[in-house]
Amino acid sequence: MGRFYQKLNNRWKSTGSLLCVGLDPYPEYLLIEKNPKLEYPYLDFSREMIDSTAQFACAFKFQFACFGGRGMEEDLEQAVSYARANYPDIPVILDSKRGDIGSTAAEYAEEAFMRYGVDALTVNPYLGGDCIEAFAGYSDCGVIILCRTSNPGSAELQELQCGDLMLYEHVAHLAANKWNKNNNISLVMGATHSEALTRVRAMVGDMPFLVPGIGAQGGNLEAVLKHGLDESGYGLMINVSRGIAEAGWNEEQDFDFLAVHDAAKYYSDVIKATRSEIL
Amino acid sequence: MGRFYQKLNNRWKSTGSLLCVGLDPYPEYLLIEKNPKLEYPYLDFSREMIDSTAQFACAFKFQFACFGGRGMEEDLEQAVSYARANYPDIPVILDSKRGDIGSTAAEYAEEAFMRYGVDALTVNPYLGGDCIEAFAGYSDCGVIILCRTSNPGSAELQELQCGDLMLYEHVAHLAANKWNKNNNISLVMGATHSEALTRVRAMVGDMPFLVPGIGAQGGNLEAVLKHGLDESGYGLMINVSRGIAEAGWNEEQDFDFLAVHDAAKYYSDVIKATRSEIL
Repeated sequence: MGRFYQKLNNRWKSTGSLLCVGLDPYPEYLLIEKNPKLEYPYLDFSREMIDSTAQFACAFKFQFACFGGRGMEEDLEQAVSYARANYPDIPVILDSKRGDIGSTAAEYAEEAFMRYGVDALTVNPYLGGDCIEAFAGYSDCGVIILCRTSNPGSAELQELQCGDLMLYEHVAHLAANKWNKNNNISLVMGATHSEALTRVRAMVGDMPFLVPGIGAQGGNLEAVLKHGLDESGYGLMINVSRGIAEAGWNEEQDFDFLAVHDAAKYYSDVIKATRSEIL
Repeated sequence: MGRFYQKLNNRWKSTGSLLCVGLDPYPEYLLIEKNPKLEYPYLDFSREMIDSTAQFACAFKFQFACFGGRGMEEDLEQAVSYARANYPDIPVILDSKRGDIGSTAAEYAEEAFMRYGVDALTVNPYLGGDCIEAFAGYSDCGVIILCRTSNPGSAELQELQCGDLMLYEHVAHLAANKWNKNNNISLVMGATHSEALTRVRAMVGDMPFLVPGIGAQGGNLEAVLKHGLDESGYGLMINVSRGIAEAGWNEEQDFDFLAVHDAAKYYSDVIKATRSEIL
């Protein structure tokens, strides 16, 4: 078991938290217009978010697009570095959904694991196993493969019936039985599809799931836990991004990081309480 | 028809070239060790590649991973800007295979079309149509969707039989009949699958194909043209990256951009000659 899984398992067990805190600095949160002197708004925002939520997090997930869309890669580098230095027990995920042919995927693996230095990244499976391999070859790191995503249009391809299995089930099957040679693969399983959680949990044993879709996207937490927990009562990184960040946002005044802290505590607590009822 | 397709069609017709020049500055080409004083090796290499090959190109394709893997986004910005300023008739593609849920895809569209200012980008379809929409909403720009890729592992998912169609055929069908509201979608169709070229060309009319896999990956040029050309005898951007760049590489001396020029001319000529035989 590589570094990512070790850290994740330790964190689950030491804190009891299954909350993955999503760090998505959309420009509208950053109040750049109100604070034109801020030299590093993306980094400063990320640091405050990290400090406000760390005690409730089993993992941090950075949304690459929010940085890459605005040329803020250096802020992302430093924010990851800040999280790792100050909270070394919390695994850091880069959500960049990379995927390309072998030699190119190797450059993306370099980007995630060497340049940004994250513990895990998200990967798109459409290109097949030779693409996954370039990432999974970093056996200390986690590779989190898109399986059943939470967005409204996701069924268009992912639920196509291909023989006995739907496409996302093929992905789960390949992930568990063919691609996971280094025991470092996880799956993205959207909270909005509890049927899929049941099917895939039955196929992949205790493989961890990154679960987006709680909060802003309206996924049902009880169903996620009921259908997604592994046999030991863990196995889930339940991601909340906007549900936490938007608690701090308001039009009138500075971003309210105390409200962010409270929102992270709320989600962590409600996940814990719901989990206790189920177990 | 948006700006990308207008430029592409004009370029096909004014030059007769179907060669897309792939700009993939892998670190081993850049001779950084031999030229430690180079301040912008990625930018300088790209500029020389562009100048050496422009006259033979129907399009330029930048491989994002080669820049992103090494923190060279500013060089990419400037290289795109250089191509557009000096060769305004040649469409510029960013090959970054992005794909995410709506609000995040919007940031990736910002990255490609606003920050880097390319005419088109490559997109992964696994998340479905709402992901495509965020990109295709930029109706002046091209959205090039992965359909049948050229890598060895690509059949694992892409050739799964889903009802009457294989997965990649579903992608082609959705691209042509549902996602292409702004008439700005193209497809990635690997040169290594001539059967797929035939099937998809029959489904999508004159939709342009970006065709990787000639050269280093061993795709058959004659088969690509025979099965891929549209009714007007165009419709293809046949990409060569390593086949051109590696012509200039040697261990002993500086990168040989004259050899790069000759390689681009060779590929452009052989594509033209083979096309003439077929038409």
